[in-house]
Amino acid sequence: EKSNGKRIPPPVVHYHMNNVTSSADPLGNRETILILTPLARFYQEYWDNLMKLTYPHELITLGFMIPKNREGNAATAALQEQITKTQKSGPMKDRFASIIIERQDFDPPLASQNEAERHKMENQKARRAAMSRARNSLLFTTLGPSTSWVLWLDSDIIETPSTLIQDLAAHDKAIIVPNCFQRYVDPKTKQPAERPYDFNSWQDSDTARDMAEKMGPDDILLEGYAAMATYRTLMAYMSADGGDPRQEIALDGVGGTALLVKAEVHRDGAMFPPFPFYHLIETEGFAKMAKRLGWSSTGLPNYKVYHYNE
Amino acid sequence: EKSNGKRIPPPVVHYHMNNVTSSADPLGNRETILILTPLARFYQEYWDNLMKLTYPHELITLGFMIPKNREGNAATAALQEQITKTQKSGPMKDRFASIIIERQDFDPPLASQNEAERHKMENQKARRAAMSRARNSLLFTTLGPSTSWVLWLDSDIIETPSTLIQDLAAHDKAIIVPNCFQRYVDPKTKQPAERPYDFNSWQDSDTARDMAEKMGPDDILLEGYAAMATYRTLMAYMSADGGDPRQEIALDGVGGTALLVKAEVHRDGAMFPPFPFYHLIETEGFAKMAKRLGWSSTGLPNYKVYHYNE
Ligand SMILES: Nc1nc2c(ncn2[C@@H]2O[C@H](COP(=O)(O)OP(=O)(O)O)[C@@H](O)[C@H]2O)c(=O)[nH]1
Ligand SMILES: Nc1nc2c(ncn2[C@@H]2O[C@H](COP(=O)(O)OP(=O)(O)O)[C@@H](O)[C@H]2O)c(=O)[nH]1
Ligand SMILES: [Mn+2]
Ligand SMILES: [Mn+2]
Repeated sequence: EKSNGKRIPPPVVHYHMNNVTSSADPLGNRETILILTPLARFYQEYWDNLMKLTYPHELITLGFMIPKNREGNAATAALQEQITKTQKSGPMKDRFASIIIERQDFDPPLASQNEAERHKMENQKARRAAMSRARNSLLFTTLGPSTSWVLWLDSDIIETPSTLIQDLAAHDKAIIVPNCFQRYVDPKTKQPAERPYDFNSWQDSDTARDMAEKMGPDDILLEGYAAMATYRTLMAYMSADGGDPRQEIALDGVGGTALLVKAEVHRDGAMFPPFPFYHLIETEGFAKMAKRLGWSSTGLPNYKVYHYNE
Repeated sequence: EKSNGKRIPPPVVHYHMNNVTSSADPLGNRETILILTPLARFYQEYWDNLMKLTYPHELITLGFMIPKNREGNAATAALQEQITKTQKSGPMKDRFASIIIERQDFDPPLASQNEAERHKMENQKARRAAMSRARNSLLFTTLGPSTSWVLWLDSDIIETPSTLIQDLAAHDKAIIVPNCFQRYVDPKTKQPAERPYDFNSWQDSDTARDMAEKMGPDDILLEGYAAMATYRTLMAYMSADGGDPRQEIALDGVGGTALLVKAEVHRDGAMFPPFPFYHLIETEGFAKMAKRLGWSSTGLPNYKVYHYNE
């Protein structure tokens, strides 16, 4: 920025927002993708899967938000090692356009990141509020005027089709979410099997609406807890053997493990409410907020991505 | 980005968000300021006032969002002319760190920008929803991980103290708003006089809360209209001759003509709701949303900035 002691400001940059398309053919239109990952733990399988995405890496920017605790330090070091390998010495086609790592300025509310502790019902509000703030912070500071799409991808998503971006974008939807499953070994048959993992993608129910109406202003509805039966229609249970992966359903709530959003939706103001918004928070609240802004959510019950199994 | 045909990605950038301070001494801490201006019309007086701000320009980035219509084209040309003068041939100390001009991808809802038309009560909801989207779009695409403060400054604010940034920041508040007045010539005395301009900075009232409670979910409360008497306490009427410019009051709603916000508040997710949020939109809704995120708003009744008089 300085040459012979003088500060030479960069030329003014002009952006015409209507030239920033987010179309069914992002590759043909050379649209830029921002992949955002809140990351508490680093999994090698996540990175390997990311590397295999066939969307041109030179059109992809990666953004990470990592807690500033001991586990976060370890995750940062492991991530940085992979990044260095890819960006410095890896083949040209593997290299991403740019990578931003942000370290969080607040502590995660839970001491433990293990699955049982994370999923306790009484921990959800504080945990998901913190997750929302991490997501917002990452989003607000990395979205640029020339970003076409934002792909939210959790750090424990370890398997997706390599054409994930093209496949999701082809639907040309404002917000689109695949079905998030988990592989496991069936203890009875000892055979590999799979089960639904993410219950945040749903269609609303009268029961849930009634429950919401009777709640206090700061109460939240949670999905996937027997103690709070909402009778919503869950995308998790709507996949069919041999079902068309392109089948679309309308959704009222979305999960964020893998989630493709047109940048325009976020630019309009859609964020992840850390406070109860129509009694919803985080990604579920995001879908509701987007709806208030005029944008709908779509789910793909038969298009699967896989979550790590601890 | 390319040298001898090879793409060399920039090195990964690390940000420690807790090192990004927004303190009472921004100058001492070399904190960066992002000045954001939604701009429908260009006023030379706005630019001249901006140029006189004594906060080091090299720590200031300017961001503009301009409609893509005929008036917007004219405004862009006039703005660009001033920018070129400053950034290319002006004295080094006048030059800003960087400048971004974004052209809006949706049309303003009103055909006319004249004051009478703008302020008609029935035009408020659509007009302020569009303003919210313009503000959000500008905010989401320009806020960076190293921004400390965001100063919202309307394009028709033509007079402020030259120490505006230092003065406001010195209060060390999450959200702080000066009192926005307008100079005019008193038709009776023919003498120069001033009157309150912005009625969006207020303390809530029981009446307003009762009105909100009886409203439909999509209705909004508006301030400054006789047909909707809210009995809120308006900062506009709280200035006193010779009053202490440092006097603080707590606010529930804020105006956005000049408004200093710690970047952290926006990063948490505080945006300008284009939809009724607790029956509030735009800057008033912003204050309410910030409150839901745990951040309070402060007003300075005796610290004045001045709005253009058409
Ligand atoms: N930055 C940040 N990321 C987090 C935090 N907690 C979890 N994550 C990440 O956020 C995503 C979702 O969290 P996770 O615990 O996997 O949620 P679950 O799968 O619903 O139990 C994953 O990518 C985590 O690595 C946190 O406190 N801060
Ligand atoms: N980008 C954009 N800016 C606008 C639009 N309408 C007004 N503005 C700007 O937004 C700010 C507030 O609008 P203004 O009409 O002055 O509001 P008022 O003073 O409350 O009547 C000013 O800086 C305007 O130049 C719009 O449709 N798009
Ligand atoms: Mn997970
Ligand atoms: Mn104005």
